[in-house]
Amino acid sequence: MASSPGPIAEQLATLPLIDHHVHGCWVGDVDRVRFENALNEANTEPVAADDAPFDSQIGFAVRRWCAPVLGLPAHAAADVYWDRRERLSEDEVSRTFLPAAGVSNWIVDTGLPGVADPDTLARWSGAAAHEVIRLESIAEEAVARGGNYAAAFDEILAHRAATAVGTKSIIAYRGGFDGDLTDPEPVQVEDAARRWRDAGGRRVTDRTLLRFGLHRGLRLGKPLQLHVGLGDRDADLHRTNPLLLLDFLRGSGTTPVMLLHCYPFEREAGYLAQAFSNVYIDVGLAVNHLGARASELIARSLELAPFRKVLYSSDAFGPAELHYLGAQLWRHGLATVLQRFVDADAWALDDALRVAEMIAHGNARRVYGLTGNSTHD
Amino acid sequence: MASSPGPIAEQLATLPLIDHHVHGCWVGDVDRVRFENALNEANTEPVAADDAPFDSQIGFAVRRWCAPVLGLPAHAAADVYWDRRERLSEDEVSRTFLPAAGVSNWIVDTGLPGVADPDTLARWSGAAAHEVIRLESIAEEAVARGGNYAAAFDEILAHRAATAVGTKSIIAYRGGFDGDLTDPEPVQVEDAARRWRDAGGRRVTDRTLLRFGLHRGLRLGKPLQLHVGLGDRDADLHRTNPLLLLDFLRGSGTTPVMLLHCYPFEREAGYLAQAFSNVYIDVGLAVNHLGARASELIARSLELAPFRKVLYSSDAFGPAELHYLGAQLWRHGLATVLQRFVDADAWALDDALRVAEMIAHGNARRVYGLTGNSTHD
Amino acid sequence: MASSPGPIAEQLATLPLIDHHVHGCWVGDVDRVRFENALNEANTEPVAADDAPFDSQIGFAVRRWCAPVLGLPAHAAADVYWDRRERLSEDEVSRTFLPAAGVSNWIVDTGLPGVADPDTLARWSGAAAHEVIRLESIAEEAVARGGNYAAAFDEILAHRAATAVGTKSIIAYRGGFDGDLTDPEPVQVEDAARRWRDAGGRRVTDRTLLRFGLHRGLRLGKPLQLHVGLGDRDADLHRTNPLLLLDFLRGSGTTPVMLLHCYPFEREAGYLAQAFSNVYIDVGLAVNHLGARASELIARSLELAPFRKVLYSSDAFGPAELHYLGAQLWRHGLATVLQRFVDADAWALDDALRVAEMIAHGNARRVYGLTGNSTHD
Repeated sequence: MASSPGPIAEQLATLPLIDHHVHGCWVGDVDRVRFENALNEANTEPVAADDAPFDSQIGFAVRRWCAPVLGLPAHAAADVYWDRRERLSEDEVSRTFLPAAGVSNWIVDTGLPGVADPDTLARWSGAAAHEVIRLESIAEEAVARGGNYAAAFDEILAHRAATAVGTKSIIAYRGGFDGDLTDPEPVQVEDAARRWRDAGGRRVTDRTLLRFGLHRGLRLGKPLQLHVGLGDRDADLHRTNPLLLLDFLRGSGTTPVMLLHCYPFEREAGYLAQAFSNVYIDVGLAVNHLGARASELIARSLELAPFRKVLYSSDAFGPAELHYLGAQLWRHGLATVLQRFVDADAWALDDALRVAEMIAHGNARRVYGLTGNSTHD
Repeated sequence: MASSPGPIAEQLATLPLIDHHVHGCWVGDVDRVRFENALNEANTEPVAADDAPFDSQIGFAVRRWCAPVLGLPAHAAADVYWDRRERLSEDEVSRTFLPAAGVSNWIVDTGLPGVADPDTLARWSGAAAHEVIRLESIAEEAVARGGNYAAAFDEILAHRAATAVGTKSIIAYRGGFDGDLTDPEPVQVEDAARRWRDAGGRRVTDRTLLRFGLHRGLRLGKPLQLHVGLGDRDADLHRTNPLLLLDFLRGSGTTPVMLLHCYPFEREAGYLAQAFSNVYIDVGLAVNHLGARASELIARSLELAPFRKVLYSSDAFGPAELHYLGAQLWRHGLATVLQRFVDADAWALDDALRVAEMIAHGNARRVYGLTGNSTHD
Repeated sequence: MASSPGPIAEQLATLPLIDHHVHGCWVGDVDRVRFENALNEANTEPVAADDAPFDSQIGFAVRRWCAPVLGLPAHAAADVYWDRRERLSEDEVSRTFLPAAGVSNWIVDTGLPGVADPDTLARWSGAAAHEVIRLESIAEEAVARGGNYAAAFDEILAHRAATAVGTKSIIAYRGGFDGDLTDPEPVQVEDAARRWRDAGGRRVTDRTLLRFGLHRGLRLGKPLQLHVGLGDRDADLHRTNPLLLLDFLRGSGTTPVMLLHCYPFEREAGYLAQAFSNVYIDVGLAVNHLGARASELIARSLELAPFRKVLYSSDAFGPAELHYLGAQLWRHGLATVLQRFVDADAWALDDALRVAEMIAHGNARRVYGLTGNSTHD
């Protein structure tokens, strides 16, 4: 890449990554409409003519970075790209792009259905895979059991946490961060659970139970991932401003709290990473969707956040192109940013290489307690 | 311009533009105080010594880009610029700057008085001019008629819409987006209209009637422009964050909703353009006021928004310099941004040229249903 | 510095600065833990392993810019830096870094205890020092007196203002800008003062009294500094968005209101500087904490704000490195930004040099009514 040659780009090109927040890739074959829908994150309805997902930063980035992996020239036209991809089964697509990402460990949010499970991801990529449990899924299992809700929740969480490296909450999608996020009283929890059970016990939206889950996640002590910012339009984006978490974080103790995505609040998230010893950030998902602008986002994530508090993630879901693209855009984007710092003599080269390693895998390995260095542990 | 040579800058230098949100230029002669006040957007009071509008990004940009059009060297001093301009009548100024903008179609918001009407703009520029109707002006006409308010509103709207290409709401200036934006019940509308009529029926600020107008605009089906973000201090800028429109947009159907200006919420606006098939954005007005920083703003507008959802506008009002300056800053700013993408091999050159055409005129022509390609249709 | 050679960098390297918002430097010796804590602004608790303040933008900036002042190579390792620094007394550190900042006038907020007073700062730096009075300190003195609170407040303020150049409010830390900021009625003030006195009269948090102080500051007519944005986590950062000051500013008359720091709301602050003839901004504190990213922040502060409304400050507190670092990062950051404008032929070189002088000292000298040009007045 013309704008980031030299030792930093070279190191970043091969640095193994820990993708600390990702989902499975597709397992069944897909048509073009479904593929294009997967390039639009925010719209929950089928994309229309003017959404033209290939005519977007992420669409251009797929053509730039993924086309060569399929043996096409960089920037191949959308139709050419689709024609080539269509000749492969979805499994072949995944087994092509996943290993190419250079990821040693996938930390997988298993809360979304219809995609490859962690074992499959591991097998196809030749990398390790670890699970993150959705607290809202635990809630839905707990209410289905009947009896004491809190006890059921705790039992299920303990069981699943035995093999998981962390938890995740999507309270951002169930009312947002605005409002009370304290730990509710036991009697409130059982009352709310009873009401929810009586109403059918489907999708948990009750604030009391969401707060309960959040604090059970904290108490577990494993890294607690929080969806922040960019996502689909079911969430009120302004209610996912991470600054609304201030009171919650003030009482969050030492459990690592991982602020995911954060766009367009990445500077606010960086502030929190400086303000709280237990807060970490990434700009995953947005890196894929910003394409040629990803380097500027990565640069903004390196303002107030101490460098040991920044992690890499793709938040890929669906087409395995996204598991690969996240890694490529991040490698090139960070190289561009760090080279700029070094060229301006603001940073030493050694520091740049060291920070690249921290964000690529060092910080995630430490915070999630992963062991080993190989790409196949 | 040193920073953007090559084929992109060349194409952008001559690409005909559709200025999809603009006002008239001045018709009578003006003095220097009035001219300087027109360089300050946000202050509603006469500018004071420290506002020094010529010592600002827009002031420097006028000296840089407009001075050569008047036969002066680029960057001519403010006094030199004013002396030269003063020797021309305002008509001469307009007939000099308007054609120089290279605009083929002006889409004119006629809601502000005291400036040239669309016909005059068309005649002086040699371009086509189209009208956008202010929904708040319709409201003020409707209340004056007496009788059933909704019926009067509908009749006036239907009559004026016959020759207009879209509607506009300035609800941002009348309470902002915060709060209920649903369609009110007919009885509420008539009650509110009666109260307003009894109170004198001047400037519409009643929330019920503003909501009514907004939904009548939606129902019409022509592009509905919304003032968002940057404007004067009569608006509460934080209440014009476009994310506060989420609920309104979720129920907005297929009518194109055009988010205007958007600064400093251009990234939030880009999110909405991805989230809703019918949402479009521009960064007009702010481009003029950011001058040397306009390229960075344009770059931020090309993050999440699909490229078919981004339009050009100047939002010029008053001195015809602003009609020209918007075009020049946008041409050079976009060229800088796209050249950067191409130089980094993140975009192909052909894609850059194609996106430039979309934003310059393609998207506006399609969304507003304009026909023809010439600069004189 | 590789990225900003030429006449702008040369001028900026030696331009005398007025640091219009700064605190004292340390007077007693400090250990490494305390030093590292001073590199983290937001965290109010002792920094933990992952906060690693030396592995942050400010940490890298200290190693880059301060190491050479102590005779070490640029980018010296943290341990090497600390070893060298430890051999000096804190007085020696201060007497080394303060004069090196090239500051002619320090405008000192004396509201934080345990650091050098203005006279000491002046003596050690060879520069003039002026005082800014905290309105909340006046409140705490006034309540201790007993009797009529408003009268006591006025008397103390008048006495202290005789030798001070401005006032400051930290209402951002005592509830934020959200809510009523009007001038309270006298009877409300005396009631609130009585309640506060009865409760012990320690730290003022009563909204009525904070509002009273703010309006007394306005009435005094000297520049009124407001803490905005970045600070420690005791403040709710989102409640310090300067747009929440709109109503207050609409009634603020002609007293200069100085919005300090402003990160991450620097673009919103710039808007206010354009919207109100009496509003001024700086991006102090954040410049130090952004290190290699400071130039981008400085660039964003030069969007909507007229250039006569932008000032320099370091907001340094504690280690004298910060008094020096703020100046160095600002000199280099602004040079980078202005050189970029000139290289793109967007600005003339003369204008760049003129704006640099305005922000370096011209604007502060005018607004605070300082006299003289020497570095020792």
